[in-house]
Amino acid sequence: MDDVLIIGTVALDTIETPFGKVEKGIGGSATYASYAASFFSKPAVISVIGHDFPKEYIELLEKRGINLDGLKVHDKTFHWDGYYEYDMNEAKTRKTELNSLANFKADVPENYKEIKYIFLANIDPEQQLETIKQIKNPKFIVLDTMNFWISSKKKSLLDVIKKVDVLLLNDGEARQLFGTISLVKAANEALCLGPKAVIIKKGEHGALLFTKNKHFNAPGYPLENIKDPTGCGDCFGGAFIGYLAKTNDLSESNFRKAIIYGSVIASHNAEDFGLNRLKSLTMNDIEKRYKEFQAIREF
Amino acid sequence: MDDVLIIGTVALDTIETPFGKVEKGIGGSATYASYAASFFSKPAVISVIGHDFPKEYIELLEKRGINLDGLKVHDKTFHWDGYYEYDMNEAKTRKTELNSLANFKADVPENYKEIKYIFLANIDPEQQLETIKQIKNPKFIVLDTMNFWISSKKKSLLDVIKKVDVLLLNDGEARQLFGTISLVKAANEALCLGPKAVIIKKGEHGALLFTKNKHFNAPGYPLENIKDPTGCGDCFGGAFIGYLAKTNDLSESNFRKAIIYGSVIASHNAEDFGLNRLKSLTMNDIEKRYKEFQAIREF
Repeated sequence: MDDVLIIGTVALDTIETPFGKVEKGIGGSATYASYAASFFSKPAVISVIGHDFPKEYIELLEKRGINLDGLKVHDKTFHWDGYYEYDMNEAKTRKTELNSLANFKADVPENYKEIKYIFLANIDPEQQLETIKQIKNPKFIVLDTMNFWISSKKKSLLDVIKKVDVLLLNDGEARQLFGTISLVKAANEALCLGPKAVIIKKGEHGALLFTKNKHFNAPGYPLENIKDPTGCGDCFGGAFIGYLAKTNDLSESNFRKAIIYGSVIASHNAEDFGLNRLKSLTMNDIEKRYKEFQAIREF
Repeated sequence: MDDVLIIGTVALDTIETPFGKVEKGIGGSATYASYAASFFSKPAVISVIGHDFPKEYIELLEKRGINLDGLKVHDKTFHWDGYYEYDMNEAKTRKTELNSLANFKADVPENYKEIKYIFLANIDPEQQLETIKQIKNPKFIVLDTMNFWISSKKKSLLDVIKKVDVLLLNDGEARQLFGTISLVKAANEALCLGPKAVIIKKGEHGALLFTKNKHFNAPGYPLENIKDPTGCGDCFGGAFIGYLAKTNDLSESNFRKAIIYGSVIASHNAEDFGLNRLKSLTMNDIEKRYKEFQAIREF
């Protein structure tokens, strides 16, 4: 059986960074998340593409054993056109063409309904809620989101947060959602809403895990060259839940390991455009970098 | 014998943060650095104050066993007037009155000249160079600086960098000095100039240590309330060299411990204005937080 259900976007991304440009490459939160999760477990995707979505991109996902039964085909594919400036910290949007995503309704296929590990990757919070409703007996739900939904659908987003085990968001989003500069305060407010854990992603500065009485600080990996940070947050989330599903251990100490695996995949992802780096990534590469994460933390 | 020589500023600081205001409180790089170092070793300060410098501030330093033989009195005390906005990341300057600092020449008293551990805290790089020249046989020199000197005296600053064992600077300064967004590249360029180690301070995001073949990532401490970050970088540097002088162990692994002690003192310093928090800090508090630093990075 497939062991991680992932709802999110499957997109065509046009991306420009100081190191190059890609026109309509494969992208989307469910794409990156499922690809990252596939190193540890069997992901099953819920999303929508258009008739223009290249077959070779589908094959790329299928080759990784990703179940695409929940991938609808309708109209044109969601297209994001954006760029990064020199500091690479923040994606700037040139154009967003929702296309088939505009009227997307999450339908969970019958063969997904028993899946225990659910990743609500970045997508409309109303469709994240729809997805939860259709799952029979979820064991563990992780939620990711982004600033766009905090601005436009905060109420629905708060409803989803109340129903999940782990909330994942970046530092800017945590500050925006809870109206405080202090990440500690933002995390504590998030924990009061229901989740057992809050993970704050900080890009090159690593990630923070907050649970009721504990705190974990994951290092950022010292990358000399970052080519394209697109999808790093989705990779982080996908690898995080993929590792947890594989080990089926939801202790705080296993969360920490899962965060490091998330950081390992995300740091590799930034080394090239789109899925280019992950396409050639091996479990050896992953374990090697995991050990480096240990070494840079010893004192 | 005193075991750490510290040259830097002793100042009166007028500081406003979203959490309060202090008029002409005790400040300056040598003040914070020597106070922090005094938890581990005996600091000896080189600096200048004016006749307006309150006696009680002098007593505050003397009570910690800080040697002030190298503290000249002339004219009025250097006065910095600045503020922090909501995000507390960057000090904004309202007014800088150099006063006695304008014509300050570093004179190393005879009884300081055999000191082995030297901290060139933030001050004019020409006076940092002067100080090095007068020391008989230094064993270990740490250099701190700031954006102001990178802009105004880059050549002198590069000359100092070539003569020191450890370069300390924050992330923005590293990027400014070496003209690259990548901290890894900036650190590598700095190492090529001569220092055996480069430490990049990142405020709430912790600190990075780069040596020839190794990298260490020190976590930031998750402070819920930051009242005043002034002097945190100086505290970090002072505690770092103070701990190294105390242990007299210059291995990379001891650098890592010294960085954590630096982070411990700096994180406490941010909890209140001026030296208020450090005044009541005990070795018990320090060891307790050191253990917390260990716990938050275990995986």
